[in-house]
Amino acid sequence: MTFLEKLNAIVDRNQSLVCVGLDTDPELLPPGIDVLQFNKAIIDATADLVCAYKPNIAFYEAQGERGLDILHHTIQQIPKEIPVIIDAKRGDIGNTSDAYARAIFDFLKADAVTVSPYLGFDSIEPFIKDRERFIFLLCRTSNKGAADFQSLPCQFEGKTSPLYEVVALKASRWNKQGNIGLVVGATYPEELKSIRQAHPDMVFLIPGVGAQGGDLKQAVHYGVDMHLRGIIINSSRQILYASRGNDFAVAARKAAKTLRDEINKHLAELRG
Amino acid sequence: MTFLEKLNAIVDRNQSLVCVGLDTDPELLPPGIDVLQFNKAIIDATADLVCAYKPNIAFYEAQGERGLDILHHTIQQIPKEIPVIIDAKRGDIGNTSDAYARAIFDFLKADAVTVSPYLGFDSIEPFIKDRERFIFLLCRTSNKGAADFQSLPCQFEGKTSPLYEVVALKASRWNKQGNIGLVVGATYPEELKSIRQAHPDMVFLIPGVGAQGGDLKQAVHYGVDMHLRGIIINSSRQILYASRGNDFAVAARKAAKTLRDEINKHLAELRG
Repeated sequence: MTFLEKLNAIVDRNQSLVCVGLDTDPELLPPGIDVLQFNKAIIDATADLVCAYKPNIAFYEAQGERGLDILHHTIQQIPKEIPVIIDAKRGDIGNTSDAYARAIFDFLKADAVTVSPYLGFDSIEPFIKDRERFIFLLCRTSNKGAADFQSLPCQFEGKTSPLYEVVALKASRWNKQGNIGLVVGATYPEELKSIRQAHPDMVFLIPGVGAQGGDLKQAVHYGVDMHLRGIIINSSRQILYASRGNDFAVAARKAAKTLRDEINKHLAELRG
Repeated sequence: MTFLEKLNAIVDRNQSLVCVGLDTDPELLPPGIDVLQFNKAIIDATADLVCAYKPNIAFYEAQGERGLDILHHTIQQIPKEIPVIIDAKRGDIGNTSDAYARAIFDFLKADAVTVSPYLGFDSIEPFIKDRERFIFLLCRTSNKGAADFQSLPCQFEGKTSPLYEVVALKASRWNKQGNIGLVVGATYPEELKSIRQAHPDMVFLIPGVGAQGGDLKQAVHYGVDMHLRGIIINSSRQILYASRGNDFAVAARKAAKTLRDEINKHLAELRG
């Protein structure tokens, strides 16, 4: 089963385009709870409300080898029918990207990974050569420094476009097996709109709503494809830390449900 | 002590600009030797011939949490006076880059790390805010796909230059504490030359000689700064796998010494 088949099945079943970002910071946990217990409680409380989980590997690496072990066990707690996207933003020369692909897909057994475009095609190929593997290539990220390079006007095939548009265009051409999506932040709605117009069929992973301030309605209206799908809206801190007390799982469930229902309300507006 | 002070001291002592890339692949080891034993033997055999070691973290992550433990122990085997550069090509939004910086500097206790520029300044800042930490920002990488994005002509401040030149220019402006260097591959000597001309004072980490085919003489002639320093020439496979038998450490020493002496011969040509 491909990533997209798995994704579409869970979107149907849970009626959800919400991804929970498992960016668990050990310093933000309720007293007496460890990271694995916290993640397990979050997963149990939200598994019927989401279409994916996205742990950012940085938060686990910061805890050393123990952290990677916790991530490994966290992924094992996620029900098999829900796709796992590792947010790793990897990208290296060919033989090294191949080692990263083994780490993500063979060792951690994730379904998808985020990849950085800077090194070009041979840095990406090892992640996509198997059509059951999926990547989200960084295109227009949600952070304030994104414009430093991503918005530079670039010349490509006789046209001048921002770098992120060239990244999206090349990604769409490399997407021969249908296993490349794009990361496009909700914090830049006009850019999201133009990338969607240029690429009606690609799946977008959309961070930046919630703590980062992106507007949800615009993310949905500008992000969806013609089937009112094709977006995965990520929320991390807003769900994980909805309560800092021992009711964190109940509060996370409520926050995830609110986000899911708001997205579905915006989809209903689009259906008219 | 800053990274550059440590680097300059060992360059003087070992009369070497060679960095050994500890990209150890468990499938390429002599029978009966594990990765940590192999790394320890390589370090013992080369420590008086190098100016740095550069493990690429991908090769360790591919082995899961055990791999990270091996990397941790490998770094502990490296003599304190030799800088350790983790080749990780990280870069994420601010609070996530901060977690990566903790992983690299606090947990692994490296001296420097390679960082990818695509997300812009706030993705880089957590790695450089402490002036004793050092990064090598990817500028012109050594792989064949490097041109896909790095060579796109970009408009910046009224000029059109390849993206890698804009990256180098912005990096030089962000380098207020003197703790940013650049990754520039030996496989693109003309680009190396132009980047050096534009940035006479920055330190370059130069991969791409050896297995990747970069020309050593050009790397030295075009790469060095006005003090005939400012370059760190990395070699991985050519040294690690100089012999695939049980004499691997002796062969590695010989390969490292040959590389060091060839670099020094080219430096002597420049001294005239």
